[in-house]
Amino acid sequence: MTDLRQLMENEVFMAFASYTTIVLSKMMLMSTITAFYRMTRKVFANPEDCASVDKGENAKKYLRTDDRVERVRRAHLNDIENIVPFLGIGLLYSLSEPDLSTALLHFRLFVAARIYHTIAYLTPLPQPNRALAFFVGFGVTFSMAYRLLKSKLYL
Amino acid sequence: MTDLRQLMENEVFMAFASYTTIVLSKMMLMSTITAFYRMTRKVFANPEDCASVDKGENAKKYLRTDDRVERVRRAHLNDIENIVPFLGIGLLYSLSEPDLSTALLHFRLFVAARIYHTIAYLTPLPQPNRALAFFVGFGVTFSMAYRLLKSKLYL
Amino acid sequence: MTDLRQLMENEVFMAFASYTTIVLSKMMLMSTITAFYRMTRKVFANPEDCASVDKGENAKKYLRTDDRVERVRRAHLNDIENIVPFLGIGLLYSLSEPDLSTALLHFRLFVAARIYHTIAYLTPLPQPNRALAFFVGFGVTFSMAYRLLKSKLYL
Repeated sequence: MTDLRQLMENEVFMAFASYTTIVLSKMMLMSTITAFYRMTRKVFANPEDCASVDKGENAKKYLRTDDRVERVRRAHLNDIENIVPFLGIGLLYSLSEPDLSTALLHFRLFVAARIYHTIAYLTPLPQPNRALAFFVGFGVTFSMAYRLLKSKLYL
Repeated sequence: MTDLRQLMENEVFMAFASYTTIVLSKMMLMSTITAFYRMTRKVFANPEDCASVDKGENAKKYLRTDDRVERVRRAHLNDIENIVPFLGIGLLYSLSEPDLSTALLHFRLFVAARIYHTIAYLTPLPQPNRALAFFVGFGVTFSMAYRLLKSKLYL
Repeated sequence: MTDLRQLMENEVFMAFASYTTIVLSKMMLMSTITAFYRMTRKVFANPEDCASVDKGENAKKYLRTDDRVERVRRAHLNDIENIVPFLGIGLLYSLSEPDLSTALLHFRLFVAARIYHTIAYLTPLPQPNRALAFFVGFGVTFSMAYRLLKSKLYL
């Protein structure tokens, strides 16, 4: 068990764990926002989901799409597209013994950029707010990938 | 090599590895179910895929959508949206020295909930079967996130 | 800190880190390819994104879909569907002390298959180029899952 305790006593790893948990929890909230809009706007993707608002043939008219719901779904998918690389590359980067201050800068920028991206997408704020938030998160992940490959490449 | 052997001798970590591998394998099966319906129902998303069923202009009529295929794809996307947070948060939770019995309860509930979610989605079972399965998996992941942040927060 | 240094001195783990970083970086490039086609073809999903090409009511005509953009998005989603299981199963497999040569074979095949999959999808090459690339990557991940469950099952 010694090594496990050592891993979680490593400050970079603990910081990675905390920031990752926060950004993944934020991503999970997108599901509840989608569910909220589906319920309040009566917009469903499956016939069995319409049963709560109406019965029989009438219910089928709720099988439709809605701008608001589609916007949340796009924001959610964009989260997945960006948080999955952060998760993989960030984990390996955290184990490659980076400076604590450099690592913290990466993690904080990424989490702040993704939270701002969600706000910019759902409000919606005029461009380039969302584009900038996207590129900051993207740049942070590429920077970690570059540092990792530079110090530990093994092919 | 000592530490690696120790990591895989840690019971919580071994359990996490086993349950995660099972739930990710289940998720991969969704791709084959989609492929199966695309082939048997002749429903394709790309012109080059239609060449197996017909030639030239006739083939383009198979570029269509189908309720059954879209249903599998929604179930697959829902898997991704929920299994990615489980993967990240669960890994970090497993390394934070939780009780073995508590950890096993989390992992088992999550895997059972996601398997039931797939059954409820593909059958389809009437609501709230699928919604309950979704919320059980969601709650398990949030519970791990809460325990992790409570014991190891480092910002 | 000893264990961390040991983990990154483990050759299998270093190889996993390198190949994973490469394949995740490739996946991130899909976002920039989508953005490139959206800009050059003036095809947008959000009203606020159209403001760069035109103003007022005229801008709304750019809220449309385009074959080329949808193709890149399908390739991107297929990447996510396959790289997420590789990330989770591959990480746990790397920690289960496999032979270095067997592990390298798995990682190299997977990365090569996914790069070829992207080329086959975006060109597009005739089938079964893309299908074969898909199944090689799929088979590699299942092979790692099988080895992992066989050697370390703990339920």
